[in-house]
Amino acid sequence: MGRRQFLGVGLGLAALPVLGCGSLLSPALREAPGGETAPRARLRDLGIRIGSLTPGPHNAITDVPGVVVGHTTLIRGDGPLKVGVGPVRTGVTAVLAHQGDLTREPVFAADLTLNGNGEFTGLGPLRRTGRLGAPILLTDTESIGPVYDGAMGYLLELNPNLFSGPFRPEPVVGETSAGFLHDAGGRHVLPEHAVDAIRNARPGPVAEGNVGGGTGMRAYRFKAGIGTASRAADVSGVMYTTGVLVQANHGGRSHFTVQGVPVGTEIPDLLLEKGGGGNGKSLLAVIATDAPLLPVQLQALCKRATMGIARTGSISTRSSGDLMVAFSTAHRLPPTTSRHDIDAVHSGFDAIYQSVVEATEEAILNALTAASTMVGRDGNRIHALPLDRFVTVMRRYGRL
Amino acid sequence: MGRRQFLGVGLGLAALPVLGCGSLLSPALREAPGGETAPRARLRDLGIRIGSLTPGPHNAITDVPGVVVGHTTLIRGDGPLKVGVGPVRTGVTAVLAHQGDLTREPVFAADLTLNGNGEFTGLGPLRRTGRLGAPILLTDTESIGPVYDGAMGYLLELNPNLFSGPFRPEPVVGETSAGFLHDAGGRHVLPEHAVDAIRNARPGPVAEGNVGGGTGMRAYRFKAGIGTASRAADVSGVMYTTGVLVQANHGGRSHFTVQGVPVGTEIPDLLLEKGGGGNGKSLLAVIATDAPLLPVQLQALCKRATMGIARTGSISTRSSGDLMVAFSTAHRLPPTTSRHDIDAVHSGFDAIYQSVVEATEEAILNALTAASTMVGRDGNRIHALPLDRFVTVMRRYGRL
Amino acid sequence: MGRRQFLGVGLGLAALPVLGCGSLLSPALREAPGGETAPRARLRDLGIRIGSLTPGPHNAITDVPGVVVGHTTLIRGDGPLKVGVGPVRTGVTAVLAHQGDLTREPVFAADLTLNGNGEFTGLGPLRRTGRLGAPILLTDTESIGPVYDGAMGYLLELNPNLFSGPFRPEPVVGETSAGFLHDAGGRHVLPEHAVDAIRNARPGPVAEGNVGGGTGMRAYRFKAGIGTASRAADVSGVMYTTGVLVQANHGGRSHFTVQGVPVGTEIPDLLLEKGGGGNGKSLLAVIATDAPLLPVQLQALCKRATMGIARTGSISTRSSGDLMVAFSTAHRLPPTTSRHDIDAVHSGFDAIYQSVVEATEEAILNALTAASTMVGRDGNRIHALPLDRFVTVMRRYGRL
Amino acid sequence: MGRRQFLGVGLGLAALPVLGCGSLLSPALREAPGGETAPRARLRDLGIRIGSLTPGPHNAITDVPGVVVGHTTLIRGDGPLKVGVGPVRTGVTAVLAHQGDLTREPVFAADLTLNGNGEFTGLGPLRRTGRLGAPILLTDTESIGPVYDGAMGYLLELNPNLFSGPFRPEPVVGETSAGFLHDAGGRHVLPEHAVDAIRNARPGPVAEGNVGGGTGMRAYRFKAGIGTASRAADVSGVMYTTGVLVQANHGGRSHFTVQGVPVGTEIPDLLLEKGGGGNGKSLLAVIATDAPLLPVQLQALCKRATMGIARTGSISTRSSGDLMVAFSTAHRLPPTTSRHDIDAVHSGFDAIYQSVVEATEEAILNALTAASTMVGRDGNRIHALPLDRFVTVMRRYGRL
Repeated sequence: MGRRQFLGVGLGLAALPVLGCGSLLSPALREAPGGETAPRARLRDLGIRIGSLTPGPHNAITDVPGVVVGHTTLIRGDGPLKVGVGPVRTGVTAVLAHQGDLTREPVFAADLTLNGNGEFTGLGPLRRTGRLGAPILLTDTESIGPVYDGAMGYLLELNPNLFSGPFRPEPVVGETSAGFLHDAGGRHVLPEHAVDAIRNARPGPVAEGNVGGGTGMRAYRFKAGIGTASRAADVSGVMYTTGVLVQANHGGRSHFTVQGVPVGTEIPDLLLEKGGGGNGKSLLAVIATDAPLLPVQLQALCKRATMGIARTGSISTRSSGDLMVAFSTAHRLPPTTSRHDIDAVHSGFDAIYQSVVEATEEAILNALTAASTMVGRDGNRIHALPLDRFVTVMRRYGRL
Repeated sequence: MGRRQFLGVGLGLAALPVLGCGSLLSPALREAPGGETAPRARLRDLGIRIGSLTPGPHNAITDVPGVVVGHTTLIRGDGPLKVGVGPVRTGVTAVLAHQGDLTREPVFAADLTLNGNGEFTGLGPLRRTGRLGAPILLTDTESIGPVYDGAMGYLLELNPNLFSGPFRPEPVVGETSAGFLHDAGGRHVLPEHAVDAIRNARPGPVAEGNVGGGTGMRAYRFKAGIGTASRAADVSGVMYTTGVLVQANHGGRSHFTVQGVPVGTEIPDLLLEKGGGGNGKSLLAVIATDAPLLPVQLQALCKRATMGIARTGSISTRSSGDLMVAFSTAHRLPPTTSRHDIDAVHSGFDAIYQSVVEATEEAILNALTAASTMVGRDGNRIHALPLDRFVTVMRRYGRL
Repeated sequence: MGRRQFLGVGLGLAALPVLGCGSLLSPALREAPGGETAPRARLRDLGIRIGSLTPGPHNAITDVPGVVVGHTTLIRGDGPLKVGVGPVRTGVTAVLAHQGDLTREPVFAADLTLNGNGEFTGLGPLRRTGRLGAPILLTDTESIGPVYDGAMGYLLELNPNLFSGPFRPEPVVGETSAGFLHDAGGRHVLPEHAVDAIRNARPGPVAEGNVGGGTGMRAYRFKAGIGTASRAADVSGVMYTTGVLVQANHGGRSHFTVQGVPVGTEIPDLLLEKGGGGNGKSLLAVIATDAPLLPVQLQALCKRATMGIARTGSISTRSSGDLMVAFSTAHRLPPTTSRHDIDAVHSGFDAIYQSVVEATEEAILNALTAASTMVGRDGNRIHALPLDRFVTVMRRYGRL
Repeated sequence: MGRRQFLGVGLGLAALPVLGCGSLLSPALREAPGGETAPRARLRDLGIRIGSLTPGPHNAITDVPGVVVGHTTLIRGDGPLKVGVGPVRTGVTAVLAHQGDLTREPVFAADLTLNGNGEFTGLGPLRRTGRLGAPILLTDTESIGPVYDGAMGYLLELNPNLFSGPFRPEPVVGETSAGFLHDAGGRHVLPEHAVDAIRNARPGPVAEGNVGGGTGMRAYRFKAGIGTASRAADVSGVMYTTGVLVQANHGGRSHFTVQGVPVGTEIPDLLLEKGGGGNGKSLLAVIATDAPLLPVQLQALCKRATMGIARTGSISTRSSGDLMVAFSTAHRLPPTTSRHDIDAVHSGFDAIYQSVVEATEEAILNALTAASTMVGRDGNRIHALPLDRFVTVMRRYGRL
């Protein structure tokens, strides 16, 4: 009758029709469920290069060895909003530092708030210990509770005595608001959707745009959602990879710039339909690196993510929850061992900082170039960034 | 089959047998469900006075005008742990800054972490805006998800367009661990239990000990849980009231002192049965005042709560989540108004600081003197602080 | 023979030859003592407009009513470094929130660290009270001590019983490193130079480039130093002015962008001579507004300054001390009054945020366009940004 | 004529009569220059034991191997205040993590503010890098500038290219106010006094009470100043030593408790003469350990110091600057090495936390039992804690 029941049967078996669970369509032609079919691309496919460093093989957070990403995408129904029925345009994205038991092998981590008008749970233990011991989950605002609950079930299954021990990680769940397209009040995300995203997480290419937690999101009033990018950096002869994944739902149209080019001013139409809807609200960024950094150093990476955000024109509006979490996969830290060795990079930070700035900027732009136009509740429509016009503008400013 | 269903029927109607919902038994003789009947008391009934300031009429956080407290207490079953069945020893405690629409009339607030090994959700928006716009809910570790979800339902019912507006409060849900007595993995708390605690919140006397979120908790290895106290302070001729409510689940026996008297050393027996169980894990404190303080000033009150905690002998152990939230009821702040007036007390802080230190210390001790011995899963038993021996020790050290 | 003696005679009377104290040469043709005469300009004189908001009358931090700025510039000697003799290329810049007694009429303030590898003293009391009660002084790294000491003398003269009272502001002194041009080890700044900068502070146009604390500084390996800009913003029909002043000494050449145009890549020559010298080290920003903001809101302005910094291409390198202080002139706060009224803007933040982002970006660029080439110790030379080539590049990228 | 001159001649050679430079008189009978001769003691000499852990051989911060302490004590003149002449009652205390080149071999460190109404410089670089690369210096409020300047001279002598490198530590200088006894406005501390304290620093017993930076200080309105204590803790079979040194100048009489015994209430006389003077203002604490802790872990030690402070009855009054710095001597960290190994203790924290709480509490009490009555400007007198009456009170409450 209550939660246990559906958790009992639900682990791994979503009861509802779920589209695009962890799926990865070709970047050249992606279906746009709930919206329109239109060719989408990654930024680099358009010939635009951000910064000077080289991306990893997938230009994704999963280029950091061990890191896996999974999506549960919920797209269902059309037409007028009927609270509790739909339309549904949301989901859950999971980022795991590794596929082992995170509660017993946490990794160093830190977080930062650029503008705090949003939620990221589980940061208390993360800050005290400097360790991440749980999946990072991204979803819509109204779904924090069930996603937290699903992750809790997952953690307890891994480690039934988790909260008797000295290291007590809590689920790290962040949110941005999908209400313009989605029946947010209907609260269609269930605990098992979070568990599915975790269990479906895998290495390799990452689906972007209208997937997972990013399904109903927009940025600069264009359709956006999940985006990712990575960079390799040479630190005294050792190569380290740093990747960023964002759930982008922020910014006003006039703010939007690409390499300083005022794209938002040049493409002032294709605003949210129907009227209003306001600016997007929030931006979540997850930063992963295999450089052996301490928590104090990982927080510095979060700061560089804010600089990548700024480069896309954001002013981090008042109503935005612009939140960052960074972790290093270099060490799995047995929480009960009395002592162990940690390598810590002490120079060459600037190359890693540069990686984070560039990858964050490109991840946001990838979310915009990957996401297709989507129609949701009440026929509300968020247009995709029109790639042809975008390319024309960039060419006009000498950037292509 | 899913969450919506039981939320649909469950709002305000708990499906499970619930004891002591907001009830207040006589301090002289409280039932001890799941444990033993034994006369319990408040600290002051024993003749012990903490500090020099005068408590409010109820010596409770509800002495701050407008503040209300509600409990949902879940006590069910005995005998061996059967995950998903029981025994159940937990609940939810709700503290509301006022009974109006908190989302539209938030109050100034701040938080502080003494030791961060625990969870308090919703602090992102609170920190950015300096405002509390949601109920504060205290529960057990594994129940954050459903309690968050229940509070989300409550907020959306108050204000369906909550997350389209500029002020987006998130539920503020804190936790401590009940696993020694409680079928924590069974996760018996449902969203509607949180809603019940909110709806049952009222002014006046506050039930203490084995109630609400404090049901399964212990402190200094004695049975503890919810405790509260208040103080009135004269600031340049104006009287302000400050109240504290704690969910106490922290500390090792040897740490425990009352007015510096080493009570824990003097009563070294009556430890957790059966063996182990370790130290309690965490302490949550909610601080309310009607003094017109700004967020930066409210954070200073949180710091003084840590000093009250220290006076009971705590060293804030490594595995403890010792977390504080403070708010001022002096102003209800329309979040969309462009400007308004704020009175801010600029002198006389020390009297308010003193209030917080004293009320925190006494609230923790009230949790200990109020809570009865409780037996939970597998016959595990946490003994109450034996009041007769406690009084004898205090007398021996010249404190009575 | 000691400090008191020269303070005794020195207040207001610098004993050493000082050039350019608070002077403001025509923007079209500035002398470049210690370097070369070359026509310099403000960014807007070149036809480049940053952002969409309108600057104040002076496009300077002094557009915020009441705010005054003063410089003491020390330029002396040429040729080989002789520690203790010279050459001298440094100074002190003072920013005062108003010309009254700041210790008795402090203003709301907050600070933020982007990258903490630098010093800003006096922030402890500022953070606790949310108030600024002292001048803000910018100087070179090795001169913090005497500048602090000079400001202390100034404060004690204003208010001999300062440290007996409840509000105890400390001098707020920030630094960046001038060592590439300057006999830093010789430590030529004396307490009276700080006092002179304070006493010379005035409203109106502000000298930029090689003046005051910015005398020996560089940014993106071009000569830089002091820069300023301002913006007016309409908040629900009320106009507020926000101004920023920077001491810019940060960044590598390849980082440098203007409106996203890779100016640093396009002008890769004119690096520091002779060799090395590395990247600049640090960036200090002072943000002033007449909007009636609380400390928690002023800290949000500091965050937007970091976004303006990012827009000039900075990645905030590891060795940089990128530090910000913001204050509001809207209220002078009698520190001993028990209560008073505060207006706080609760909407329209985004316009003020936009002001800060734009003004910070333009202030940094003004420092670069205003500063002339300078030659210092051992013939070390830092080239000015060549304005003709700069304009050509901007034109090529469609920005002029 | 300026600072350089007296620095040139002054390094290591104080020009003024200086008493008690690093001297250590017998604990049983200490001279009390500027006051009265009276037998003083350490707390343990009186038979009072704080906590359960064992102190190191000197029960001092210098029990942490490598840590050295030096004092410069300035006591000169009597009678009416004549600004610039005297009487003088101040000094400088230096704590060094080791006697090597701290700029090239920094140690991990962190800081914390309990109440921020005071100054501790140099914390920016310390926070960014998690490293302490300079001496820690404690002095009176008005002397920050010259002490900073003296330390800067010392650092530049060690490492002339300090500010060209990637690691740029700044002097860490804290203050409390000596104005009740001392000609604070006269500002008698010179840069060379700081250098003397650094150069005189040595291991072994540490002078307490009216020495160094603590010369003119009071706590709970009794004479206080410098105090220190240490504890050894067993962490999984490895013994670690943790030491604390305080400069105590805080608290009102009624707050003062020892082991919970209300000593301040029991000895309400012997207040400041002549009238007023108010509560002491501030408390600085330096925490050293040889446990191999990371910065995030060292900040946790600072939090435990606040709990030790609370145990002496402090409420951390509004006008207090209660500031803490902690460091670990376990690793000397070459700032330019690209990577190295760090051992980090991950369990057994509670024993180290306990060490800090106990050592802080005892260090404050040692400052009080060690300091003799002192008479300063205008015949102002601060009485020592009368040891006989103190012992009587403690006995009455069953603590002796």
